[in-house]
Amino acid sequence: MEYNPIYLDIVWVLFATALVFLMQAGFAMLEAGATRAKNAANIIMKNVMDVSIGSLVFWMVGFGFMFGANKSGWIGTSNFFLSDIDPATDSGMFDFAFFIFQTVFAATAATIISGAVSERTKFAAYLIYTVAVTAFIYPIFGSWVWGGGWLSELGDNGFMDFAGSTVVHSVGGWAALAGAIVVGPRLGKYTAGKSPVAIPGHSITLAALGVFILWFGWFGFNAGSTVSGNTGLIAIIAVTTNLAAAAGGVAALTLSYLLWKRFDASMTLNGVIGGLVAITAGTANMSPAMAALTGLIGGMVVVGAIVLLDRKLKVDDPVGAIAVHGFAGAWGTIAVGLFASATYGGVDGLFFGGGVGQLLVQLTGVAAAFLFVFSTSFIVFKVIDMTIGMRASDEDQIRGLDISEHQAAGYPDFAPAIPLVSYSTPVLSGAAVPSGAAIDETIES
Amino acid sequence: MEYNPIYLDIVWVLFATALVFLMQAGFAMLEAGATRAKNAANIIMKNVMDVSIGSLVFWMVGFGFMFGANKSGWIGTSNFFLSDIDPATDSGMFDFAFFIFQTVFAATAATIISGAVSERTKFAAYLIYTVAVTAFIYPIFGSWVWGGGWLSELGDNGFMDFAGSTVVHSVGGWAALAGAIVVGPRLGKYTAGKSPVAIPGHSITLAALGVFILWFGWFGFNAGSTVSGNTGLIAIIAVTTNLAAAAGGVAALTLSYLLWKRFDASMTLNGVIGGLVAITAGTANMSPAMAALTGLIGGMVVVGAIVLLDRKLKVDDPVGAIAVHGFAGAWGTIAVGLFASATYGGVDGLFFGGGVGQLLVQLTGVAAAFLFVFSTSFIVFKVIDMTIGMRASDEDQIRGLDISEHQAAGYPDFAPAIPLVSYSTPVLSGAAVPSGAAIDETIES
Amino acid sequence: MEYNPIYLDIVWVLFATALVFLMQAGFAMLEAGATRAKNAANIIMKNVMDVSIGSLVFWMVGFGFMFGANKSGWIGTSNFFLSDIDPATDSGMFDFAFFIFQTVFAATAATIISGAVSERTKFAAYLIYTVAVTAFIYPIFGSWVWGGGWLSELGDNGFMDFAGSTVVHSVGGWAALAGAIVVGPRLGKYTAGKSPVAIPGHSITLAALGVFILWFGWFGFNAGSTVSGNTGLIAIIAVTTNLAAAAGGVAALTLSYLLWKRFDASMTLNGVIGGLVAITAGTANMSPAMAALTGLIGGMVVVGAIVLLDRKLKVDDPVGAIAVHGFAGAWGTIAVGLFASATYGGVDGLFFGGGVGQLLVQLTGVAAAFLFVFSTSFIVFKVIDMTIGMRASDEDQIRGLDISEHQAAGYPDFAPAIPLVSYSTPVLSGAAVPSGAAIDETIES
Repeated sequence: MEYNPIYLDIVWVLFATALVFLMQAGFAMLEAGATRAKNAANIIMKNVMDVSIGSLVFWMVGFGFMFGANKSGWIGTSNFFLSDIDPATDSGMFDFAFFIFQTVFAATAATIISGAVSERTKFAAYLIYTVAVTAFIYPIFGSWVWGGGWLSELGDNGFMDFAGSTVVHSVGGWAALAGAIVVGPRLGKYTAGKSPVAIPGHSITLAALGVFILWFGWFGFNAGSTVSGNTGLIAIIAVTTNLAAAAGGVAALTLSYLLWKRFDASMTLNGVIGGLVAITAGTANMSPAMAALTGLIGGMVVVGAIVLLDRKLKVDDPVGAIAVHGFAGAWGTIAVGLFASATYGGVDGLFFGGGVGQLLVQLTGVAAAFLFVFSTSFIVFKVIDMTIGMRASDEDQIRGLDISEHQAAGYPDFAPAIPLVSYSTPVLSGAAVPSGAAIDETIES
Repeated sequence: MEYNPIYLDIVWVLFATALVFLMQAGFAMLEAGATRAKNAANIIMKNVMDVSIGSLVFWMVGFGFMFGANKSGWIGTSNFFLSDIDPATDSGMFDFAFFIFQTVFAATAATIISGAVSERTKFAAYLIYTVAVTAFIYPIFGSWVWGGGWLSELGDNGFMDFAGSTVVHSVGGWAALAGAIVVGPRLGKYTAGKSPVAIPGHSITLAALGVFILWFGWFGFNAGSTVSGNTGLIAIIAVTTNLAAAAGGVAALTLSYLLWKRFDASMTLNGVIGGLVAITAGTANMSPAMAALTGLIGGMVVVGAIVLLDRKLKVDDPVGAIAVHGFAGAWGTIAVGLFASATYGGVDGLFFGGGVGQLLVQLTGVAAAFLFVFSTSFIVFKVIDMTIGMRASDEDQIRGLDISEHQAAGYPDFAPAIPLVSYSTPVLSGAAVPSGAAIDETIES
Repeated sequence: MEYNPIYLDIVWVLFATALVFLMQAGFAMLEAGATRAKNAANIIMKNVMDVSIGSLVFWMVGFGFMFGANKSGWIGTSNFFLSDIDPATDSGMFDFAFFIFQTVFAATAATIISGAVSERTKFAAYLIYTVAVTAFIYPIFGSWVWGGGWLSELGDNGFMDFAGSTVVHSVGGWAALAGAIVVGPRLGKYTAGKSPVAIPGHSITLAALGVFILWFGWFGFNAGSTVSGNTGLIAIIAVTTNLAAAAGGVAALTLSYLLWKRFDASMTLNGVIGGLVAITAGTANMSPAMAALTGLIGGMVVVGAIVLLDRKLKVDDPVGAIAVHGFAGAWGTIAVGLFASATYGGVDGLFFGGGVGQLLVQLTGVAAAFLFVFSTSFIVFKVIDMTIGMRASDEDQIRGLDISEHQAAGYPDFAPAIPLVSYSTPVLSGAAVPSGAAIDETIES
């Protein structure tokens, strides 16, 4: 039998697809663990449904908008329902593999949002937004970068975002920002004249499990983005990915210890993800040392952005998704313009003698993502809010969305914690499953 | 080095094996999450032991019965203990890979049963049945389809069940049906003149985690069934598998909302699995659109079958395994006769101009699986019941099997929920870890 | 395109790397599940940080010590920071793949220790030890076996430890033993004149999830150790790995039933891991039957060693890591000298006519591992203890390390179990999250 490299390519892409798919479980566990028990069923239902709806919608139209024939440079216009793929050929089969890999990417972008709007968003509203992001917002921006659109033509090398720090993560993060603003903070989170209330998640073990699963999935997310197994590039990608994650965790732990004199668990977990998000753009184009540095700074960006959002901007993001995916994604994309090295790919960044050219392209792409995604998402969320309504009622938030939306309790066999008498938000103390002792004041000034 | 395709085949099969193996974790989490906290140790012990015992027994005899030399068309009769495999050759090594892949399939069939008989079955009885199913029942039926037996010779193309909607899932489902009937419903489930009591599971997050892991594993389950990496077929399989799962989830969510005006979490989770089970037979032989349709109907079949079993037939299946694996598996196998397309494989189904020939073959296989597996399993369970006894005593059910069988509490650090005064089954209110507020009336007429 | 086997090798190694990485999640869930809720955040933080710190330190120096140029036979002295790897070549890319695979191995050795010292070790002390083990202790011993050092030259075939029963698992286990001795038992574990108190873990489902994930990861751990996909050897490795795990579980279940008349869940889970640890050395060099036997004895070794450590030696190991990794690892390494077969690799063991030569080499390696690792680890732990201190105060142990180290509660939404009046250790009854009913007297004489 003669060697046909396409089979190893397909095997590799499907391996990576499976890993990226499992990131849905990672997000579900991280988001559920980082929020309250009374909303656990709601969170996991959002995660299950965004990958379900996203898979269908991306097949119907999203993939065509993103990777279809793109004359304008602004949107693809063919291959809806995979109509252009010929199943009788090996290259058609590769196209199917490419499609399923892109599907799980789209689902990742969608699921990032669920955490940021959790604990107070109506389920139906979330489902509608999921359609919007996987059918239009994500694919259209994606077409600009990966579908041969205008950002891919910018400068000498085009906008460089190898595996999606911006295309997937910042897109998810900025959409999450719009959603969190439109839906508003959770009941009891901010009270005029008082410090923001830290509302601890209900299971640190599930949150940690989620992070480990995400880290695992990221090997597929980044190394799979070669969409080829016939390249040694996948090895350096695995190395840079892992080092950045490790450095992000160490940075967030260290910084939180310096700031608050404790080994903060939720910051550390978010720091790991921040490192992973940050390296995603430059994973194939940096030395291991620069990857570690990118992740290190990524972890610090996450801590800083969480404090900024939670304390200063008063944007309530229960799981830190905006900081992790939006901010660290932007940082990582910019880092390509600073730390990329021709030794590890096609371009030298500013610190390796490449000048500011690529850096400006990177900044342009980062800005374009923010402007396009935040504005379109804001409009979509506003329209949803003005029609069916985004926000669950105060009463439903107190009872928990599990009961109001799903008529189910997530943990009926366990007694809820008894609210402390001194608990700082009286509104919450009437909750069916209150968050108990507010020991974990995650953010303190 | 010249290209030897067998190495990529082995790599692919082992990749798929690992994914299918992890489905054991998926089943364990789904089943544990969907049942009560007081039986959690018992459930996970059943899952650990069925893969352990199943692996040993399938190696000793099951694999030989299923894939050994099969002159009669009814059972294989060689290769026990892998005695025919030559470790000195590459093809022998491929045989080892094939064997381990089939081992995790057999373990999947076995573990399906544990959920349906959970919360009231003696541990020793379950272990004995596990030997029966992995040594005889699963391998013998499997030999008819995948071991060159009579069903593989039926009609023009033989009975088509690419990855086991019937061979694995319906076999597990019908065995589960027999077990659930013989062991009877859980204490307090059915009371004459009253509606069946919905007994909610103790952790929606673990149940959801289980579903995500199963979905992940299914990429290996279906695409691994090519037992070759040198084929583009694995790509279309990944596409059809994912679309069917997504459609199954959407269908079950929608149907449950139409029926009961809530976004039912357990129905949606089971709908996803139903979509996956349904596509398993035709995963390599359908267009993406037909795969989505197969999964969509699969999700609806699951909802309908759960209502049928729980309300009308009064068969108590705590996790919905019979509906998901038995009914959706049968549906998916029939769907091949309707929706298969020669463009995507070797035969046209009824709706693609192929006539009723294949459909009749499919129906024959479905019927054969039910008749053989239900009857033999029923006999085995009855014999176990008449000798050592299947059913845990009322007292043990009230205390929970964790204490009666394992002398351990699954969650000793958490206070059990306080039973509501108005709780509808007084018997249960004395439980060590009662199921608390019966908020999740999963099935309502 | 001509066939270049290095790409399939890299794909295989990265696949295996991802699986081994996920073992971190397995260890985290197993260790958290097997300990008390009040220390859950602390346990997962240890697991997150040992892989983070380990990844960075192993990149900086550990990999160089283990696999760098090794003239003395005692330590490598080059390739720090991967300085010798050329990213411009395919073989350099393979080296990156080899490095990342070895990184996750080093992280595995490190994380084994966290369970044995859990619930009473200061977080900072643990972090410092993690640096020591991943920078020096693990790499130096590893260089003797896998880095071309003196153990690899011993006898006719060198010390045989294919995937690390000794190099990874016993190293982790003996370091854990040193740590458990230096830090001392948990408060309330041993009281003069009384039986040791069994302190049950807080979540049997998470512990079981951990075991399933570890079993899954072991397919990568063992079969990845070929560091090549162009070999059928990976198939027999998958078979022997799975059979040994299965046999280990069955053996531990059976033995615990014979000893204590119950189907002990924690023993069974540890028995599975014991079977896996035991087969790791000989996984590529044994028949399936001998692999099953090795795992069977491995499961029994685990039960025996847990009883020995807990009852006789009074070494408090909350998760059984010393028994599982230290003792079963030693057993499995010795088993190569007994059960290896030239039919399945390069040497015959004692029972296959090969004489005692290899057995003596194996015993030498086992002894060297114990002497080197236990003594160096003991010194490191003692130095840490005499400087910053290893042991959390009694008060911190009672409150739980989550509060004292991380100022967070792992499960703030759930009410802690009410301590039984008759609870045998009065000290513990004041715990914020007490371990409740001591139903699971894991070890009884």
